Amino acid sequence: MYMSKLYAPTLKEDPADAELASHRLLLRAGMIRKEAAGLYSYLPLAWRSIRKIENIVRDEMDAAGAQELMMPIMVDAELWRESGRIDAYGKELVRFDDRHGREFVLGPTHEETVTALVRNELRSYKQLPVNLYHIQDKFRDEFRPRFGLMRGREFIMKDAYSFSATQESLQEEYDKMKQAYANICERCYIKALPVVADSGEIGGDTSVEYMALADAGEASLVYCDECGFAADDEAASTKVVVTEGPGDGTLTKVETPGMGTIEAVAKFFGFPENGTRKSLALIDAEGKPVVAIVPGDHELNDCKAEHVFGKGYRMMTDEELQANGLHKGFIGPVNLPEGIRLVCDESLRESKQWACGANEVDYHFTGACPECDFTVDEWADLVTVVAGDPCPHCGKPLSAARGIEVSQVFQLGTKYSEAMGATFMDEDGKEKPLIMGCYGVGVSRSLAAVVEQHNDEHGIVWPVSVAPYEVAVIPLDPKKEECATVCEQIVDGLCAEGIEVVVDDRDERPGFKFADNDLMGFPYQVVLGKRGLKNGTVELKDRATGEREDVAIDEVVAKVAELVKAARR
Amino acid sequence: MYMSKLYAPTLKEDPADAELASHRLLLRAGMIRKEAAGLYSYLPLAWRSIRKIENIVRDEMDAAGAQELMMPIMVDAELWRESGRIDAYGKELVRFDDRHGREFVLGPTHEETVTALVRNELRSYKQLPVNLYHIQDKFRDEFRPRFGLMRGREFIMKDAYSFSATQESLQEEYDKMKQAYANICERCYIKALPVVADSGEIGGDTSVEYMALADAGEASLVYCDECGFAADDEAASTKVVVTEGPGDGTLTKVETPGMGTIEAVAKFFGFPENGTRKSLALIDAEGKPVVAIVPGDHELNDCKAEHVFGKGYRMMTDEELQANGLHKGFIGPVNLPEGIRLVCDESLRESKQWACGANEVDYHFTGACPECDFTVDEWADLVTVVAGDPCPHCGKPLSAARGIEVSQVFQLGTKYSEAMGATFMDEDGKEKPLIMGCYGVGVSRSLAAVVEQHNDEHGIVWPVSVAPYEVAVIPLDPKKEECATVCEQIVDGLCAEGIEVVVDDRDERPGFKFADNDLMGFPYQVVLGKRGLKNGTVELKDRATGEREDVAIDEVVAKVAELVKAARR
Repeated sequence: MYMSKLYAPTLKEDPADAELASHRLLLRAGMIRKEAAGLYSYLPLAWRSIRKIENIVRDEMDAAGAQELMMPIMVDAELWRESGRIDAYGKELVRFDDRHGREFVLGPTHEETVTALVRNELRSYKQLPVNLYHIQDKFRDEFRPRFGLMRGREFIMKDAYSFSATQESLQEEYDKMKQAYANICERCYIKALPVVADSGEIGGDTSVEYMALADAGEASLVYCDECGFAADDEAASTKVVVTEGPGDGTLTKVETPGMGTIEAVAKFFGFPENGTRKSLALIDAEGKPVVAIVPGDHELNDCKAEHVFGKGYRMMTDEELQANGLHKGFIGPVNLPEGIRLVCDESLRESKQWACGANEVDYHFTGACPECDFTVDEWADLVTVVAGDPCPHCGKPLSAARGIEVSQVFQLGTKYSEAMGATFMDEDGKEKPLIMGCYGVGVSRSLAAVVEQHNDEHGIVWPVSVAPYEVAVIPLDPKKEECATVCEQIVDGLCAEGIEVVVDDRDERPGFKFADNDLMGFPYQVVLGKRGLKNGTVELKDRATGEREDVAIDEVVAKVAELVKAARR
Repeated sequence: MYMSKLYAPTLKEDPADAELASHRLLLRAGMIRKEAAGLYSYLPLAWRSIRKIENIVRDEMDAAGAQELMMPIMVDAELWRESGRIDAYGKELVRFDDRHGREFVLGPTHEETVTALVRNELRSYKQLPVNLYHIQDKFRDEFRPRFGLMRGREFIMKDAYSFSATQESLQEEYDKMKQAYANICERCYIKALPVVADSGEIGGDTSVEYMALADAGEASLVYCDECGFAADDEAASTKVVVTEGPGDGTLTKVETPGMGTIEAVAKFFGFPENGTRKSLALIDAEGKPVVAIVPGDHELNDCKAEHVFGKGYRMMTDEELQANGLHKGFIGPVNLPEGIRLVCDESLRESKQWACGANEVDYHFTGACPECDFTVDEWADLVTVVAGDPCPHCGKPLSAARGIEVSQVFQLGTKYSEAMGATFMDEDGKEKPLIMGCYGVGVSRSLAAVVEQHNDEHGIVWPVSVAPYEVAVIPLDPKKEECATVCEQIVDGLCAEGIEVVVDDRDERPGFKFADNDLMGFPYQVVLGKRGLKNGTVELKDRATGEREDVAIDEVVAKVAELVKAARR
């Protein structure tokens, strides 16, 4: 491909509204363009990368025994009524009536479609398991689409659905998908962690998200370098280590004038924040007052709090604090006004000497001891796990990171098959609902994740396996015959080796070409300069390391081919 | 791929509502399934064929210098207002509001999107020409979707858009696309004719449709075996040959009791229908009465009539006939009541002896002569060309056929670029609108066309280049060790040769397997039977010809590989 023909309009300036590196660089490098909020066109370079990611996904899915098909994007809303999802999904679901007034949705995922597809055709245990997938544009009408390809309204996803006769078979499919997803990340050069996404109601390892580590990620997670455990910080559950507060073991009221924050109290006592206790006044989902207490250096976790206090729980207003006899900044478990439920974090159960508010303005207690000085109504897991907390598996300190969810595997069980009557005849002659799993890879989001993880101040640094082209050949005097001849020789040689080459034959200054090629980020650059050509050499630049090297013209093809082939995955 | 795992649920019976071979066979062979009216899932086998067609299309597009990208399916309706198409498109356009009340459409084609994409970035004649394409699901809310993949509401299309600085450059892009489309049809084994679709207002060769010849096609066309001319029968324009009617050159009134049809009149006079004149009483778009006269053996062409009588012209009702003093079956140009416009087909201009209605019940004239016996208000091209009419290019008789429109090329000119302000700076320093062409290939419809052209009473007969798998290996005793060993040896050998193999390892009777494999239509079958294996042979069957041949086990891999490779395109 010659750059003079290539449709890749690069921009000189950073686009104004692009916060993330991937968004900014893909725009600047002429690889994506916005059509409307959350809707992007992939220009030829980005589209080549997307197709490479798709092919890696396809390759791993096929190797894992899944079969590719293609279901329609338009889905009869009737199916979504059968599953009960139509109302649960809310406004993110794109819905419309066809010309005859029948309602359709644009599938954000295809559980209903695939269940309806197989429900009269997968009839016997002998046909199972089956795993079916497609790679398709999905639609989600985000309230506030942003971050380029990271959170769009139309995006490319691979979604797979497995059907099994037994839970063991589902587990096997699920494990195969987990391995496939790990392989996909590795082959795309995405550094990702498999993160426990929800060990909630069903229990066990029923959903894992693959999180590409990136500062710009929307999800925060904790992981253990020692044993490999990783979890969304909301889903992670561990026993936070707490230190005892100051004092000599007896309940002592201390004047703490104006010290209404953990920080001020810890400083006053000369103790770490972890030695203090943070009290939060809440109204639970039923409208009743609650005080929740957590270690001073941890936060109440919204997701966990919902489990304990119900969906819709909230902080008390100033009026409610007053009405309940509570004083902001000085709330605590001792002398709690009657009728207020006291719920404390599990990690505090063994702690016998708490520094906490005294339920009196400008006073705190030290040495407050549960069961001696106050009664706890309930112990519960309430806090967001942070870096330094012990790994729940091996006890080593956890690290924290931010991540981009690039894929997810999920054991669905019989939720859809029961609702939609998708049954099979089991070995024992009984009709049973199909046991399902679903497995998604965000293809366009993976592209964004690659760029988030592979860029520098000059632009994108494509890993070979997903680069739009593997090598840029850059003749600095494309119109001079000698330069053009050598260029053609090298390009022909690389093409013959099966290397994907783009030639920067544009009539531009060297400085412009260097900057533009760095921005577009092809893994290797072969620069044909006047001086080098006189000596029979070209310059080979490794975009990732920035290292340059003079290579004899006759040797450069073999050298580049070797480097590229070694880096393909 | 092992058939015991393959998701391809074949049906024993023909599905009830499938009229076309492609619809019926793709359903029966477990290749497509209906999700809702006009919405189909492609099961794994059909999806493999679709991907092959896509890759052939991609290959030819890239070779012709076009660049692949991907635009969103959702299109801001504002763009369709800019182009003015939103109201013109009517109810086939899927429209909906997003959660913020902004209107979007699901693109049936992407002229607006692509014009908006390039309008600020293709700024100089130096950047031109550019040809951009994508392969994507398109949406058209057909009033009555039917015929399986032939006329769906969601279908796969390749649409390309070229941008040029000059008309010559547009013509070059257009010619390249025509060649690419001819190549695509050939490589997909689709026998198709490039058919002039509209030589209307702009004139010249501005749009060509590629019609796959098939009895089930929705379009009728005429073509010349001699010179290669072909046209939609509605668009074709030629000088129909007419014979003179009976009589001696003088106007003679003849009693023709009850003979109100061309057939009856021709029979009565013992003359060919072509020697009679057919008179039609119409109300034109302005509500005025007209009589149109065409050769007795030709039909008034609706499309051409619209050009002459205006959109909305229609046949007179019985009441209108009476009110205008006309008698059904006996209308003619002589003694036409006053106030009725007389328009006659061009082919009749030189004819001096017409047999036609006498405007009197039960009477016809013979020997009626224009200008002597009546006055023609207008001569116009009115008739649908049929087989036997002379080719407009070489004069040889035309043949007629039915066809499926699989692709179309079109010179758009500046329609969209002017409406949407997509201009470039030309060599002369002037701002000019981009000159556009658009080029579509119906990918899913091509699949249907392949099946329409390649099937027999046993099922589909896939051509190698688009077959889901190239070879089916059919062990008749897959559980017997000897059979299994030979099977594995052959399959391994074929795979090593890069041949795509499916193995029918199902535990079914031979008769079932033979019928099922014929239905699914893989180009070659290698059958491992008990008797053959004893003699060291397998049976090789060519699905297309039905020919069978015993081949030595050691030779079958080489033989099949040679056949398959020769048939790939």
